[in-house]
Amino acid sequence: MTTERQPTGRTRVRRHRDRASYETAEIDAILDEGMICHVAACVDGVPWMIPTAYGRDGDVLYLHGAAGNHLLAAAGDGGDVVVTVSLLDGMVLARSTFNHSFNYRSVVVFGRAEAVTDPPEKAHALEVIVDHLLPGRSREARPPTDAELRQTRVVRLALDEASAKIRRGPASDQPDDVGLPIWAGVLPLRTVAGPAEPDVHNQPGVAAPAGFDQPRRWSLEEGDPAR
Amino acid sequence: MTTERQPTGRTRVRRHRDRASYETAEIDAILDEGMICHVAACVDGVPWMIPTAYGRDGDVLYLHGAAGNHLLAAAGDGGDVVVTVSLLDGMVLARSTFNHSFNYRSVVVFGRAEAVTDPPEKAHALEVIVDHLLPGRSREARPPTDAELRQTRVVRLALDEASAKIRRGPASDQPDDVGLPIWAGVLPLRTVAGPAEPDVHNQPGVAAPAGFDQPRRWSLEEGDPAR
Repeated sequence: MTTERQPTGRTRVRRHRDRASYETAEIDAILDEGMICHVAACVDGVPWMIPTAYGRDGDVLYLHGAAGNHLLAAAGDGGDVVVTVSLLDGMVLARSTFNHSFNYRSVVVFGRAEAVTDPPEKAHALEVIVDHLLPGRSREARPPTDAELRQTRVVRLALDEASAKIRRGPASDQPDDVGLPIWAGVLPLRTVAGPAEPDVHNQPGVAAPAGFDQPRRWSLEEGDPAR
Repeated sequence: MTTERQPTGRTRVRRHRDRASYETAEIDAILDEGMICHVAACVDGVPWMIPTAYGRDGDVLYLHGAAGNHLLAAAGDGGDVVVTVSLLDGMVLARSTFNHSFNYRSVVVFGRAEAVTDPPEKAHALEVIVDHLLPGRSREARPPTDAELRQTRVVRLALDEASAKIRRGPASDQPDDVGLPIWAGVLPLRTVAGPAEPDVHNQPGVAAPAGFDQPRRWSLEEGDPAR
């Protein structure tokens, strides 16, 4: 069964409605594949934005930053925030300047964030964020101390008001332009990872994290020592 | 001679000041390497954000969108905007959860945008945006018609209030953690392009764009037919 989120005035895609998706599974897949998000909030009527790490736990998005981060402080005070995750899949070269585009998958989430202050939920949120980058990593790394938790600001944003916008496929030219002697096509783009650079102080015999050799979302380069 | 931008209350990096750069050349290089930016504005006190294409012409950033785009409309009315370009260079795995990080290069630009309504400057801005993606492409593609220019909203943002934040190098663990039997290191990330997918309607003998074989910012994959 396909579950759809109800579009709102903020999440309904107005331009290129054929590119819109309100399906929970499609939204979640984009959020899970992205590595960073951009989060913005209005502070005294002025927009602020930061790129940051995040993690998804079901229908909740966790964001974190330094305790002194005033954008996340404003967000945690119940202010409206907007979070975007954008995956760039290709450059689309059309015959006309006007029809140049990107292939992409993006998600936008609107809502009022809440500060996470309860230490167990804060620790859980940080596990979710680290495991978002590398599944299982939170069980390998040293967990945060109480002092580290106090130095970290975490906010929680419900995924109730979210939509995806996706463009796939070839260039879309006006019919009159298709016969022009101008090269059109798509240049696919993707993120690749590796080779891993082990820290010089790693203890002898300590293996690279599980998951490096079975990347969930990146192509590992040939010759990666973590394979 | 190194030129630096004067940091303001909005662009001065407060956390990890060692990662800040106010050098014009470093800011410009990040803007030129990025492919999309995220732009945010406050509309009736609520933050909105879109990922979009952009181009830099000296000390000016051009952004464009559909004529009906209300975020760019608000920006063009002289409202404050914030633009971020973020390049992800690696995942940094530390021994502690707390010290996990990314290697990245990011630029943030604050300012009041202005609508570009003069048709010649609008056409120029679209050339700058297309050439930002692929240098010289604006001389190959069909230029915009008057009707297409009317369908496009362009705003100009001065680069006066801009700063960069950059993290490079290995994991940074607390001294007590360095001896732990936990793998630490960096997993470099980069964007690769290709192989190009020529449009099925391309005219016989029409060559791929100049620049595909000398990418300014991406690694082309082996076997790319555009080489």
